[in-house]
Amino acid sequence: MKKLGKGVYLCEWGERDNFSPFTLLGTQPKEDKRADAECPFSEKELVFEEKEDGVLLSLPVSEDEDFYGLGLMFKKVRQTGRQLHLRVNSDPIANTGDSHAPVPFFVSTKGYGVLVLTAREATFSFCNAIQKRRRSALGENRIVTDVNALYLSDNRGSDVRIFLRGAKGISIVIFAGENTLDAVERYNLFCGGGALPALYGLGILYRCFGGADEKAVLDTAQTFRKEGVPCDMIGLEPGWQTYTYSNSLCVNRKLFPDFYGMVKKLREQNFHVNLWEHAFLHNSCPLYDELFDKSGDYEVWQGIVPDFSLEEVRRTYAEYHEREFLSAGIDDFKVDECDSSDYSTNWSFPPYAKFPGGTNGEQMHQLLGTLLAKTFHDRKKTDNKRYFSQIRSLGAGASPYSFALYSDLYAHKDFVRGIINASFSGLLWTPEVRQCESERELLRRLETLVFSPFVCVNSWMIPSPPWQQWDCEKNNRGELLENREELTKKCRDILSLRMRFLPYLYAKYFEYALHGTPVFRAMPLAYPQDLRFRDCEDEYMLGEDILIAPIDADTNAQRKVIFPAGEWIGFFDHKVYAGEATIGGEMPIGVYVKRGALLPLAQAAENTDAKPVPVTVYAFGASEGETVLYEDDGESFDYESGKYNVLKITYRNGKIQTKSEGKFGGKLWEIAGAEEINV
Amino acid sequence: MKKLGKGVYLCEWGERDNFSPFTLLGTQPKEDKRADAECPFSEKELVFEEKEDGVLLSLPVSEDEDFYGLGLMFKKVRQTGRQLHLRVNSDPIANTGDSHAPVPFFVSTKGYGVLVLTAREATFSFCNAIQKRRRSALGENRIVTDVNALYLSDNRGSDVRIFLRGAKGISIVIFAGENTLDAVERYNLFCGGGALPALYGLGILYRCFGGADEKAVLDTAQTFRKEGVPCDMIGLEPGWQTYTYSNSLCVNRKLFPDFYGMVKKLREQNFHVNLWEHAFLHNSCPLYDELFDKSGDYEVWQGIVPDFSLEEVRRTYAEYHEREFLSAGIDDFKVDECDSSDYSTNWSFPPYAKFPGGTNGEQMHQLLGTLLAKTFHDRKKTDNKRYFSQIRSLGAGASPYSFALYSDLYAHKDFVRGIINASFSGLLWTPEVRQCESERELLRRLETLVFSPFVCVNSWMIPSPPWQQWDCEKNNRGELLENREELTKKCRDILSLRMRFLPYLYAKYFEYALHGTPVFRAMPLAYPQDLRFRDCEDEYMLGEDILIAPIDADTNAQRKVIFPAGEWIGFFDHKVYAGEATIGGEMPIGVYVKRGALLPLAQAAENTDAKPVPVTVYAFGASEGETVLYEDDGESFDYESGKYNVLKITYRNGKIQTKSEGKFGGKLWEIAGAEEINV
Repeated sequence: MKKLGKGVYLCEWGERDNFSPFTLLGTQPKEDKRADAECPFSEKELVFEEKEDGVLLSLPVSEDEDFYGLGLMFKKVRQTGRQLHLRVNSDPIANTGDSHAPVPFFVSTKGYGVLVLTAREATFSFCNAIQKRRRSALGENRIVTDVNALYLSDNRGSDVRIFLRGAKGISIVIFAGENTLDAVERYNLFCGGGALPALYGLGILYRCFGGADEKAVLDTAQTFRKEGVPCDMIGLEPGWQTYTYSNSLCVNRKLFPDFYGMVKKLREQNFHVNLWEHAFLHNSCPLYDELFDKSGDYEVWQGIVPDFSLEEVRRTYAEYHEREFLSAGIDDFKVDECDSSDYSTNWSFPPYAKFPGGTNGEQMHQLLGTLLAKTFHDRKKTDNKRYFSQIRSLGAGASPYSFALYSDLYAHKDFVRGIINASFSGLLWTPEVRQCESERELLRRLETLVFSPFVCVNSWMIPSPPWQQWDCEKNNRGELLENREELTKKCRDILSLRMRFLPYLYAKYFEYALHGTPVFRAMPLAYPQDLRFRDCEDEYMLGEDILIAPIDADTNAQRKVIFPAGEWIGFFDHKVYAGEATIGGEMPIGVYVKRGALLPLAQAAENTDAKPVPVTVYAFGASEGETVLYEDDGESFDYESGKYNVLKITYRNGKIQTKSEGKFGGKLWEIAGAEEINV
Repeated sequence: MKKLGKGVYLCEWGERDNFSPFTLLGTQPKEDKRADAECPFSEKELVFEEKEDGVLLSLPVSEDEDFYGLGLMFKKVRQTGRQLHLRVNSDPIANTGDSHAPVPFFVSTKGYGVLVLTAREATFSFCNAIQKRRRSALGENRIVTDVNALYLSDNRGSDVRIFLRGAKGISIVIFAGENTLDAVERYNLFCGGGALPALYGLGILYRCFGGADEKAVLDTAQTFRKEGVPCDMIGLEPGWQTYTYSNSLCVNRKLFPDFYGMVKKLREQNFHVNLWEHAFLHNSCPLYDELFDKSGDYEVWQGIVPDFSLEEVRRTYAEYHEREFLSAGIDDFKVDECDSSDYSTNWSFPPYAKFPGGTNGEQMHQLLGTLLAKTFHDRKKTDNKRYFSQIRSLGAGASPYSFALYSDLYAHKDFVRGIINASFSGLLWTPEVRQCESERELLRRLETLVFSPFVCVNSWMIPSPPWQQWDCEKNNRGELLENREELTKKCRDILSLRMRFLPYLYAKYFEYALHGTPVFRAMPLAYPQDLRFRDCEDEYMLGEDILIAPIDADTNAQRKVIFPAGEWIGFFDHKVYAGEATIGGEMPIGVYVKRGALLPLAQAAENTDAKPVPVTVYAFGASEGETVLYEDDGESFDYESGKYNVLKITYRNGKIQTKSEGKFGGKLWEIAGAEEINV
């Protein structure tokens, strides 16, 4: 057992695996300023076994211990009692370990986390596999006839087991702490800290209709400004390229005759441009010949699959993007299909593919998304420009990259679980809004979206925004809603909420970057001692002060909200809540502020460009309070060398006091006033 | 390449795998009376590669070739373009290769089949993995914006690839023939021929309420006879045991004070008894101590998992069943949970488990169901008593066992695909009826059920039969339907259809046993040349003469029926169909008889006991025709030594002629008359 840093321990058995994400990423841990912590295990408590077909590691478990994590799982939060085999798959529809962003890292309610340094498909059993022992006491007479009781185990095993098929050894990193949040923070810091997106990235991204040409894109952007619906980013779908799928990565001049002029116009209106792409390269792509020999031995959609584990491939790819796109004012990308669907539909390279750098298909599937994120991230660092892009797969070590995950799946409950589970594994997730079945669904989904890591309204299937027509077919036929003005206003109000929460959100992202503390947090992270939250799949925290309880889009059903200890004040209704409450029906999403919190809210703007942003602080249910905001230029990586201010705001007896400390010379927030929410 | 028999070729590369289902099963191929066939491949066309983490075999593919099989897949029939990783899982909800009955055997429309002799989780790519090649011609400008076109491949690969992770060699058996049916028949004969269930097994099984005691079981049986609803088999759920889950395999005298007396009474009323069990043994099971050391090193539900790959374990298990159950008149079992759910809920042994016979968990998952079937089958052979039982997992080599697969899943479309896909792999499947959402759903499901390999009405969740109340909750509250008499009549009529088709069905099962020809057949098996059926997922044949087109239970939607060449006559409406037709709404299931067929139908009885059975032959759309029936005692394995008769029936000019050949001295069918269906 080797100590790598405060509370971080490396344990290795057998032959070290040939590829680990961390080696490939060149991960540089960020300084952990907290107290040291002892390893929760002694060496002899960890049992390593070499099996004929792989290696098995067993870790002891306490009786009431629960387990979370393993990346972007959609079907379950608490994984105790489950076995998961982590496999990259774009259509994960059961809790088997298939995911487009599996991460071989889990946390325990005992306050530790375990990361497996592997690019293989790892199998985790959480108290699920019970070793045989001779049982002598006869059981009671018992017949199970209740369908719910049938498949419940009688007892749980006393081990977590990690199986690596095909491996001859295993390397794990243990993150010690007082609680689950400690372990997650340490993991994120070990990966290099959390992501700090550009400020504009916390605004709204609107992805235009797939069939849109240059004029349609500019018209769409225009409409946002005309109608005052907030928007910071405009996304272009495949149509901007001459050839998809696979990708030419060349501008389609038929649809976009003055592409770069369009980009310039959008930038002048303070829109940041995001281009769809994937990394499977068609022979019409200028990089095809250069990267042919540096690609895997299988094609995807007739395109080559460059080996992004090779530094020179990443450089070539990044330089092309710099030359063709970044230098022309394009800031972001939607990096699609790096998640593999060889097991559910019919694309991607097979597990037995081989890449020049030495990885096989099984390993590359686990690595591709993260390596692509690194490719873009490293270039952005060189340019000293922050960003907030999208990607469909990430894995271990991805926390420093400003990429939000998304999916083609659409169940609202799964999307909420996505926000929750992402928080355990250094991931960010967007429960994007596409088409809807009803106005109610559109509103409930938008509300969840604005209280999530990344706001994306993805209208690639519809020419007009969903608030003009949520029905996909009617939208395509140009049949707009009669009440579209009223609905646009409702949606604008919801999206404006995102803009109002900007100062608070930005502070939480800063803390994510500096301390590894997730912005959005599963309840077992935020309240690890509160057993009522162990199975919670539909509530989460935004920072320490705000509880979010989305209302399901699929039905008119009501839902129960469980409140952490203390009193909570409804953000919309200003009522006091404690214990439990039932909400739903026509009510909006549950947003509750902790009594005593001082919540800084911005004046809603249509984008994040104008600075400083006027901020009002709201004292919720108290006549005093304090909060901290962060200020920097919002767009460079200068904060990493200390160029940011910590702005401490105190409110007492009707008066605001602010105190700014740090090396940033400018001003991001203008504290304009205070209000008490008395209840 | 080694020739094993007519049209059967063994090819091996590298190190032979340690366990193959066929070695463990002691498979004895049945004589193939047809012409020999050459191997469709030369040795050099098959490319073997040893990879660092397994072995890969590639087989060449023709341009229009399609692929089917791999066991009980629920989500897709044609597998061209897909990659599947065969993994045993009780909740297979996507076309990824998860299944409770995966079989590493596929057939090609070119008229050959390939079986992989492995107990590993094999990965199959059907034209899905495309090796990289330098493409020089620039593609046309193309942008895909249509959601359906997005994920379609441009072109298909030119190979089938089989990957065995962890293996150092691969052994395959190639079955040659003229068409897909040839290949499947050869595979079934290679496995020992198809199953010939006891005659009673072609009747109706009714599984009683889980909470039923002795009196309730007898009352239920009584009601069937009173109401004239056909029933040959009564199934008892877990409650007959003192302890479940895991299993004591001991009679619960509290609920069944005179258990053996009850069995006797049921037998006197011509009911055959089927007992639920699984093979995970609780410490209160008398076999626990004896089998403890002959079990795997992990428990399931606190029970041991005996290693059924060991001959002595199978013998011990079978002898216990003989002594306690078979000798007391119990004929059948429902062998549950041998399919594993370690990846989807939380039970079964892990892949890294180890069994005394040398298999690991991954291998045992692939083998367990088939080994259990063999355990029961071998005992039944010793007793010279045929049977028809149920089991939740089977694999390669299972065709001689009279076990029908079932599932806890319930989508009607999947259940129809189950019938279709089972036919490619030597499996039998029951689309059992449980609770329903509407009367319509009950009727449509029952209709599909009677035209399937095994009829099981599984009322384990409801105390009264579904025709008295299809709503599960109301049934449990005792709230019976107002129209229950009328609905009982409708359901009786549907179940009686099964009894009427008995002679024809029995003939088809006989041909399955003797020639390996599946009773129910996917359309690409029955009409391999008709390209319209390549993707057919909702029609199938019963023998050569009857086309079945179930109507979906889930919606009121209509459906299209595609007819094979020639004219078909509606069984219910006596109308002539050809080409295509649309059916649905309130119409019953589509059952169509080939014009010119002579269909033998029995007089519907309430069970199969009375013999000989009066049979009328119906000449469909012709004034002459002929058909063949089979006669034997319906209950012993004597047919295997030739004790059966082939009864050839000819109808011409209003006259019936019968000609019986064979060594059976009795009479099973009484040809009572003929009718012409003139259209």
